[in-house]
Amino acid sequence: MIRHTVAFKLKHPPGSESESAFLAAAQALSTLPTVRKFECLRQVGKKNAFTFGLSMEFASQNDYDAYNVHSEHVHFVETRWKPEVVDFIELDYVQHAVA
Amino acid sequence: MIRHTVAFKLKHPPGSESESAFLAAAQALSTLPTVRKFECLRQVGKKNAFTFGLSMEFASQNDYDAYNVHSEHVHFVETRWKPEVVDFIELDYVQHAVA
Repeated sequence: MIRHTVAFKLKHPPGSESESAFLAAAQALSTLPTVRKFECLRQVGKKNAFTFGLSMEFASQNDYDAYNVHSEHVHFVETRWKPEVVDFIELDYVQHAVA
Repeated sequence: MIRHTVAFKLKHPPGSESESAFLAAAQALSTLPTVRKFECLRQVGKKNAFTFGLSMEFASQNDYDAYNVHSEHVHFVETRWKPEVVDFIELDYVQHAVA
């Protein structure tokens, strides 16, 4: 399992229609074939400036790769993410077994 | 539900005994009374320098606050986190319902 997460900040005013439209477009990524456990999140911690997050899981690196190159994901990145996101950090996780 | 996550980088060499000891001490936080769904994670994304992560959930802000002030957590922060972690980012999430 690989958990792909991204925390981000939009250029839109909080609560605006533009913000809602972006989040709805992001939510549509949940329907892509290899995406599991998709979550749209608000980042509420006070120690950083990110205001939203996305989290999703892939069963394998192949499934993750398939998502990355999927035409709908590429389209989302080019038409929504790049013009509307002002800052972000991607963090990808796998389970770690503690000895 | 509040999901508290932190990505971090240790001062220890990868695979070292010091690294394992730190992670075991972190894992012990999973036993604190209000902690749910504790996970020890490896950060595998290439777009940042963090190498590990922790994720846990709290049923409420009160439960989160109880964790923050719990003596075992405070002790962990002072004796392990501050001296052994060289960089980190905390991200706290709540579910966001997309319209």
